[in-house]
Formats: sequence, C-alpha cells, structure tokens
Amino acid sequence: MKVYADNAATTRMSDAALNAMLPILTDVYGNASSIHGVGQEALKALDGARSKIAAAIGAEPREIYFTSGGTESDNWAIASAVTNGAKNGKRHIISTAIEHHAVLHKLKASGCDVTLLTVDSDGLVTPEQVKAAIRPDTCLVTVMYANNEIGTIEPITEIGAVCREAGVPFHTDAVQAVGHVPVDVGAMNIDMLSLAAHKFHGPKGVGALYCNKKVRLNIFQEGGSQERGKRGGTENVAGAVGMAAALERSVADMDANAAKVAALRDRLIAGLTKIESTRVNGSLTHRLPGNANVCFEGIEGESLLLMLDMQGICASSGSACTSGSLDPSHVLLAIGLPHGIAHGSLRLTLSEYNSDAEVDYILEHVAPIVERLRMMSPVWQKK
Amino acid sequence: MKVYADNAATTRMSDAALNAMLPILTDVYGNASSIHGVGQEALKALDGARSKIAAAIGAEPREIYFTSGGTESDNWAIASAVTNGAKNGKRHIISTAIEHHAVLHKLKASGCDVTLLTVDSDGLVTPEQVKAAIRPDTCLVTVMYANNEIGTIEPITEIGAVCREAGVPFHTDAVQAVGHVPVDVGAMNIDMLSLAAHKFHGPKGVGALYCNKKVRLNIFQEGGSQERGKRGGTENVAGAVGMAAALERSVADMDANAAKVAALRDRLIAGLTKIESTRVNGSLTHRLPGNANVCFEGIEGESLLLMLDMQGICASSGSACTSGSLDPSHVLLAIGLPHGIAHGSLRLTLSEYNSDAEVDYILEHVAPIVERLRMMSPVWQKK
Repeated sequence: MKVYADNAATTRMSDAALNAMLPILTDVYGNASSIHGVGQEALKALDGARSKIAAAIGAEPREIYFTSGGTESDNWAIASAVTNGAKNGKRHIISTAIEHHAVLHKLKASGCDVTLLTVDSDGLVTPEQVKAAIRPDTCLVTVMYANNEIGTIEPITEIGAVCREAGVPFHTDAVQAVGHVPVDVGAMNIDMLSLAAHKFHGPKGVGALYCNKKVRLNIFQEGGSQERGKRGGTENVAGAVGMAAALERSVADMDANAAKVAALRDRLIAGLTKIESTRVNGSLTHRLPGNANVCFEGIEGESLLLMLDMQGICASSGSACTSGSLDPSHVLLAIGLPHGIAHGSLRLTLSEYNSDAEVDYILEHVAPIVERLRMMSPVWQKK
Repeated sequence: MKVYADNAATTRMSDAALNAMLPILTDVYGNASSIHGVGQEALKALDGARSKIAAAIGAEPREIYFTSGGTESDNWAIASAVTNGAKNGKRHIISTAIEHHAVLHKLKASGCDVTLLTVDSDGLVTPEQVKAAIRPDTCLVTVMYANNEIGTIEPITEIGAVCREAGVPFHTDAVQAVGHVPVDVGAMNIDMLSLAAHKFHGPKGVGALYCNKKVRLNIFQEGGSQERGKRGGTENVAGAVGMAAALERSVADMDANAAKVAALRDRLIAGLTKIESTRVNGSLTHRLPGNANVCFEGIEGESLLLMLDMQGICASSGSACTSGSLDPSHVLLAIGLPHGIAHGSLRLTLSEYNSDAEVDYILEHVAPIVERLRMMSPVWQKK
C-alpha cells in the first residue's frame, strides 16, 4: 500500500484544480496585459480567479495580489511593512518563536528589532502577550494562523483586534489554514495574509498575498503594471485559475472534509499514543483537522521516516523546507521539548484523500518500526 | 481567420511542454524537498529539468536557479549585484536606454548611480561604449540580449569580453533570445542571464536565472534551503519540467524554426513597407527571427491594434508590460523617432506556429486599416 500522509508539505492536485487549469494551458495562452482578444480572454480568466479567491477569504478582488507562493507572500508582507515603518522611524516587529522560516529568516534579515513571543506547551501565543509587546515603534505584528509542524491554531481574531486597537498592521501566514479552516480577513481583523495554492490541492508555484486596501503595500517586483503596479511580470494565469478552483472546492467541501479528516486524525493519534513513551505535540483542541504530530522517546526521526518510506508511507519529521538539516525542529524546542525527544518526532498530515484503511496501515507499521529502532537505540531505556 | 502575432508578449505552449507537465501535475505531486519516495520522485524531475536547461545554454546544472519568471530573474540579478557592490563601496551600474522595464525600473529603485548608454538608430550599443563607461566603482553591466520591441540583437559576446577583462559582472536579460537564437553563456562571457519559459512555448509563471558559479549570488527569498539556499519556497516542479521540455524542443528545432520564421518575417516587413510613409524599426541584420516592428506616420498605434483585433489579428504596439500607458515607447524614442511617429508603431512577432497564409491575411488587412486611420487623422498629410 502507498499512503501519502505529508499533506502539510504539499498536496495532490484536485480534479477541480486540474480541470480548470487544462483549458488555460492549452488554449487561453494570451498575456493578460495584452489588449487584443487573446490577451483579454486571459485577463478575464485571471480576474475570475482573483474574485473567487477574494470571496473565499472575505476580501475584495483588488486586495488580492498573486505571487509565486507562500514564501514570496511572507517575504513581501514583511518587506513592505519594514519599508513603511522606516518612513516613520518604526523598526520593531512582533512575531512568535514558532513561525515558518519564510517569516523568521526574513525578519532576521530585515535588520529590525524583533520580539519573538514564546508559546506555551501547546504552541499557543495569547493576545495579551501581543498587547504587552507592542511599542510605539512597532511597525508589524506577524503571527501564523496555524503551525505547519504541530497544527496548533493561534487566536488570530483576538490578536488582530489587539493590533487594530493599537493601530499596528497585522500579518498572518495562513498557508496551512486557508482551505482547511474558515478564514475571514474582515471578521478576523487581518491586514495582510499569505496563502499558497499547493497546500489546498492547487498547483505549486502560485500563491497570493491579501492586503487590506487601507494598508499601503510596496512594490515587490519592478518591471510592469501587473498586480496594480506592485508586482511586475507576466501573470501566471493557469496557476491563478487552478488555485482559485482548488480553493473554491476546498471551501465548499470544508465542513465535510474537516469532519472526515479530523476523525481520521483522532484515530491516528489515539493509535500512536498507545505506543509507550509517546507524546502528542500541539494543542488537542485548537488544531488543524489533518495534523498528527508525535514524539517517540529514544528514537531518531529520520530513521523512522526512511523505514516508513520503505513501507510506502510518506511522512515527515517537521517542515519539508528544513529537511536535510540535522537541527531539531525550532517549533518542538519552543514548546519545551528537550533536544533528545524533539529528534524523535513524526508528523503525519492527512487530507480528504486519505482513508480509514490507510490509517490502519500506518498504525500497523509504526509500532513495530519504533520498537525496532528503540532496540537499536543507545539512549532508549524501557520504563 | 485568427492570427496570433504577439509572440514577444507570450507564446502558446508547445505539445512537448504540455506533455511533459501533465504527468507532473497529475501524479508527481510530491514536495521536492521531502525525503520520502513521493518527494524524491519530484526532486528527480526537478533535477532533470535543471540539467536540460543548463545544457541548452552551456551552463552547469548548479548554475541554474529557478524563478517565477524573467522579471524576477532580472530583479534578482540586479539586487544581488547591488548588494555585492555595496560591500566594496561600488555603486555604479551600466545599462542601456532600451532595456525592459524589469531592468530599468529595478535600476532606478536601486539607488545606484546608473549610466544608460545610448543606442544608434538600429537600437545597437557597442562594446566600446561599455568599455568607455566602466569606472572603478562599477558593480554591474546589464545589457539585454535582444530587444523585446524592435528585435535588435546586441553584441553580447563582445560586451561580455569587455566586462570580463575589466572584472565587472555582466548580466543579460535574454528573455527574448533564449530558445530563438543560440545562447552559450561560456563562449559569450555571460555571468548572469535571465530567461522566461513562456517566451519559448513553455508555461507562464516560471523562469530561471543563470549565475556563473564564480559569481556570488545573494539570497532573494528567505525561508528554506531550496535553490541552493538562495530562494526559499516549494519548487514549481511542473513549471520547471514544462520549461525544460519547451526549451529542449526549441533548441533542437532552432535552425529550422529560425529559417522558417525569418522568411515569414521578411515577407511581412516587405509587404508592410509597401505602405507609404512607413519605416522599419530595429536592425535588419542583427534581428530576432520573428520580430517585425514598423511605424506608420500619421496614425495612432492603439487604434490600429483595436481594428486589427476586430479582424482576428493579435498584435502589439510595444511591450505588453506597458500596455495601458499613453507614453510612447522608450525604445522607439531611444532610436531617435519623434513622439508623433513613435505613437504609430506596430509590433508583429511571429513563431513557428504562424503560416504563410497568416502573413498574407495580415498584409491584406493592415493597408486598408492604415489608410482608413490616416483619413481620420488630424496630423496625416499625404506626401
């Protein structure tokens, strides 16, 4: 059996996305900035995609800027806030210790003074922490909507309210949330939001940045009048259309899919925690429907992944973006795990394409592999 | 009849590109940074694409960095050179007056001291001009390989030699050249080169930056170890594979296609210049195979385009990236045309998918439309 359980890294395309893209790839090949018929046909498709994405998150079409993905959206939002802040002598940014590296590394490179809020053992940050950290020179608060490793969902609405009251722009990296849990930028007081198509069964290489029309967004890429003059470059029409179709389908099916996936996840977590000396990482209540993240004491995550892969099970120890690194996950360290235990992490992330039989298959194989690895482990001591 | 003659703006996808992309979109959906089997399959496809693109331009695979398109590649190359220059107190850049706005606007935003070399009436710049402009604080020379509006091909090899001798990094925006004329970064002394898939029958939303392994390239997008740590973000595997397949096919068929397309172009130019008070823009000898660019005295280009579009002919007055602008083309002004004449420009750009019958159709329709517009024109005076 082949089981793909790494949907936080990327997802397979939905038929809805693929079927929407194909006619664009084959026939609607115009440049959306050309004034002739072939170009205008492409523009119409692009505008349609923009409207669908806006509707899915409660935004206006003119507040949606297409990008090449979530990382670009994060980089753009931060770069823009830093530039705007500098004009007013503001160079302080508030974020959390468990952000994706697209945020953390960009913040580090920004030269700003960055306050990284700590999180509790569930990975949660509080609005009170944000409020206490805001200074007169704070130019941005950026807190992720849901964590990519442990699936914890942050109190975004409340954090947004704190920021709005203080008059500080609020960005959220919602790459793991959009398409999976309800997102409404208006109701949630969000000024900027990043999303990536391939996390909700859309194509890779395309994403979007939502930016509230009242917030100034700076030019990210020079060279043309595309994206309201903020991001030059010929528009990826097929990508945008595929993303919109994927998101429209994900939102329409969200309740049913979330219920199905959460049930699979709960059964998976229940089964995995029957293995002795195993802990679940992340909040059990404020959690993405598809995320299971556990640590097995005494083993090394990478060996576990390789052995699972030999059984056809695709999983992860943390973020795909940091694979190849020998450091333990910064997220697991931030929720208080010691290095030794953080190394033994396993992330299984499910989607609506997973089945009960696949969960059974995973559970059947994990326990004996963990046992075998513990037998070989120099640090494992049976309790 | 429908005639697409705006291939400098964008091209229709080739079957080679489409057929290469489809299995990736449907089946090879892994994240190329994941260590499991599904991820490694994606990585293998990505590596294969990188090797093909490297081979097509005489580079090594590790010198190819995937981007979201030509504009990003141009922005990245310039940003990197500016950062490197600043470290050594160098902040002077040499370019030309006819570059694409992706280069010109980025240069303007860079804060560097920029020397824009003039071009002759054919749109040509000389290596001697470059040599004379180099200063001790020059950190970059960026000269486009071929112009997107008038099709003029610059003496890249010779300019590259001047730069190499002076020890100044040399970037070329080869977005219009790659896949259409031979490009060899080694033989041509090119340090950095931008290309975009959709200009040679590949998909939109993907491009590449070649950077010589001896030249330091800075991080463009923070967030992960992708693209040798220089551009974080989940790789657009389908886009890269489609680009590689399109380029491989374009290079394999280049001689035959260039001969066919140049013959169509020559017949088109010959026919158009039979219309009185018409001039050809750009060099007749150093010219892209598919480019025809003419000015009709006394008329306004946008009206001409709209009337051609009503006959099913897709053309352009200049760059698609500046459509919507009322300013005349900076390229046409740079080759010495007065404002009045520059406004009456028509760019027809052909590909191997165009036919003799289509050229006949264009020629049949342009003359009466020009005549009609001239009759309505307040400035036209028959000579």
